[in-house]
Order: sequence, then structure tokens, then C-alpha cells
Amino acid sequence: MKLKVYVDRMSQPSRAILIFLKANGIEFEEVKIDIAKRQHKSPEFKKINPMGQVPAISDGRFNLFESHAILTYLACAFPGVADSWYPSDLFARAKINSVLDWHHSNLRRGSATFVLHTVLAPVFGLPSNPQAAAEAETLLSSSLSTIESIWLKGNGKFLLGGFRPSIADLSLVCEIMQLELLEEKDRSRILDPHTKVLQWIENTKNATRPHFYEVHDVLFRAKTRFQEQRLKRASNKTDSSDRSKLPSKM
Amino acid sequence: MKLKVYVDRMSQPSRAILIFLKANGIEFEEVKIDIAKRQHKSPEFKKINPMGQVPAISDGRFNLFESHAILTYLACAFPGVADSWYPSDLFARAKINSVLDWHHSNLRRGSATFVLHTVLAPVFGLPSNPQAAAEAETLLSSSLSTIESIWLKGNGKFLLGGFRPSIADLSLVCEIMQLELLEEKDRSRILDPHTKVLQWIENTKNATRPHFYEVHDVLFRAKTRFQEQRLKRASNKTDSSDRSKLPSKM
Repeated sequence: MKLKVYVDRMSQPSRAILIFLKANGIEFEEVKIDIAKRQHKSPEFKKINPMGQVPAISDGRFNLFESHAILTYLACAFPGVADSWYPSDLFARAKINSVLDWHHSNLRRGSATFVLHTVLAPVFGLPSNPQAAAEAETLLSSSLSTIESIWLKGNGKFLLGGFRPSIADLSLVCEIMQLELLEEKDRSRILDPHTKVLQWIENTKNATRPHFYEVHDVLFRAKTRFQEQRLKRASNKTDSSDRSKLPSKM
Repeated sequence: MKLKVYVDRMSQPSRAILIFLKANGIEFEEVKIDIAKRQHKSPEFKKINPMGQVPAISDGRFNLFESHAILTYLACAFPGVADSWYPSDLFARAKINSVLDWHHSNLRRGSATFVLHTVLAPVFGLPSNPQAAAEAETLLSSSLSTIESIWLKGNGKFLLGGFRPSIADLSLVCEIMQLELLEEKDRSRILDPHTKVLQWIENTKNATRPHFYEVHDVLFRAKTRFQEQRLKRASNKTDSSDRSKLPSKM
């Protein structure tokens, strides 16, 4: 049975997996699980991933979730994947695993929490927490500094001094791409100090084009939509603030 | 050069690595990095792990940090490690990777944050955050339910239906053992509803004895010390509350 890949392209780990599959010419069927429609929590999808999260994969007998586990499985299971994506050399592989493990509690946690409490909460009518956003920004910024000073030092184009991207580059860059959804002032404040990170993102885009752009298209469209919604909310706020200037009836 | 293992036995991932090494008869030198003395932030140790965290390993040329990356490396690099610890079968290995990845943002995050804001903050004179503790307890309890309903279903003694422990059992059980530091009422409220989890902890202890007990000895001693400190703080509070009942001079 053909590999089925359950994703929502609005999810950053979903995008990493799609780009990996396309860049390596692996045949698969993309099954959209629409997070906005809460399809990831449906009983049908929970048979594939009991955690109710995308991405997940299935070949009919074997189901798997967690994006890093999926990427390492795909890199090992499918012939023709260049060794540089997930080297068979034990030392090189261990270093990539180390970056991937670090990612969970640092870059991912900082980035996803910051985007949630600044952009997504207002869009989905959820309560946002400014203190959580501030703490997340601190973690996000320190994670970007760590990437720059530890894994991007030297002359390599990719993490750990590599000259070809690995699954760690793909996972981390896709996470950072989620910052496209932020207001421009926030995105600039956080990303602009990290010139090596910016260059690395470009390197990863170039190494995986045209798939990188194609898979991220939905994100760029969402960015435009969110900007319009922000302007609308700001304009409604101004109107209501004008109304609040009317003399009180009290 | 002999394998050096930089650990503080008060850290749960440090303990997982020590138990793995001892259970598999791997020769190593244990180098204590005392977190309470902030030795993990020293310039010397940062040459081994620039993140300034334990555990880390080094053989003089190759340094590695992040406990899951270390466990997978040790399981693959050292001869004589039973295959069940980290199976070479791609499907079985992928499932273990999936549990390990899930762990970062769920059980570990819930448990470590709860212990920080209930036990460690008062001991180290740090500010504790009751809201963060409450959120962490929710995540911790739902993580324990997930382990029980998804990975401990069936007749196996270990995660994923296994009859021998894997590195995932060791990592997750060592995390849960950190709850020994809690007040008994908190520990019971959180753990007691999960009878399968309690049995699985016992199975993991038994499968790795005497090393499990020996490596956790420092935790049990800390538990006693923390209980005494709690009693002392409570007694001081009562004294100061008695004083506050004295007639004011104002």
C-alpha cells in the first residue's frame, strides 16, 4: 500500500516532512487533516495517531507519529535518500539526534508558544497570555543565538558545519518559517539580529527548491490573511475607542 | 580514551544514562558535575557541553549531549548491548523514537515543571509560580494517562508491549521517579490513579536492579532532606504567624 502522509500544511513539522518526501522523490499520498476544522481530533484520525496530532504516516499496517521519528524512519527506510540527510556514520548521526532532541525544549517551544500567544490566539478567539509570550520570546531568541554560535559556526552552509542539509536543518528551518505569521515588527526584532540564521534559512530554501516554496505557499497566504484581520481588528478597536469617548450616561 | 560521563545523579536523565551503562556492563568514568554548585555552567564543562547541562559524554575527541541522543548512541556504538534496548528493526526502532520524541513536550515538560514549582523553587529560594504548577500537573496527569492507555495496553511488561525494557522505558521511568521529591499527598494524587504505570515502574526497577536502586539512592536521600526542610519551614511559619498575633504597637 502506498505511503499515506497525514498533514496540515499550516503545521511546521507537517511541512518539513512534505519537503523531505518531495526532495527525495518518495511516492506518497498527502491526506489533509484540517486542524481548523478539528479533523485531527476525529475518531477516524485517532486510529492513525491516538495523540490527535499531525503529522502522522501510515502504510496500512505500520502507523507512526512525531515528526522527528517520521523523518528518521523515512531517511532509513526508503532507498535513494542521500546519506547526508541522516548519515549512517554513528558519530554524525548522534550529533544530528542531539540537535533534534534539543529542538523540542528550546527553539520549538519558544517559537510555537510565541506564535500562539501573539498571532493565533486572537485569530481563533483564544485567550492570549502576554507573560507567556514574553517568556517564549526570551527562549526563542536565546535558541536562535545558540544555533548561530554553536551549530552554524565555521564555514559550512548548514548545521554542524554541513555542506548539504540534514533532517535537522529541515525541521528547525520549518519551525522558524512559522515566524512569517508574526507582525513584521515582531519578526524583525527577533530574527534580524541573527544574520547567520537568515543565511542558513536561505541555504535550506535553495537546497530544497522548488519544494520548499511550494509547500510553504499556504503559510504566505495565511500571513496576508492574518495581516488583513489584524488591520480589521485595529480599525474596530479605534471605532469602539471613539465610541468610548462619548459622554457617559452615568 | 575511556568514556567519560558527566552527570549529577540528582538529574533524572543523568540517572537514566548511568543505569543503562551499568546494566550493559559498559566501562566508563563518572564525572560529577554538581548542579547545586553551578559546575554545569563552568567554562571547563562548557567545553564538553556548550549548553551547560548534564548529562554529557566524551571520549576525548567526540562529545555529545542530550540524553536521548546519548542513549541511542551508546546502544548502537557499544558491542554487547541487547538489541531490545534499541532494536535494529526499523519499525520497532521508529516506535521507540516516537515515544522518546513525545516525551520531551509531554511527560518531561509536565513533570520537571511541576517539581520545579512545588519542591525545588522553595529549596533554592527561587520564585515559584502556582499557575505554572497547576498547568504542569494537568500535562503530567494527561501524560501518565496517555502512557497507560496507549503504550502500556496489552500484556507486555514494558512500553509498546515489550517484554524487555528499552531506552524509552528507562528515560520515562527515571523522569517519573523525580516525583519522589514531592510531598506525599501530591505524589499520591498524581500517581496513584495510574496502576499500570506503577506496575511498569516496578518492572523497570526489577529489570535493572541493583543498578536502579544504587543510582537512585541520592534521590531518596534528597527526599528525606526536603521533607525535613519543609517541616522546618512550616514550623518557622507557625512561629511567625504566632508572632503576628501579638498586639500591634501601632
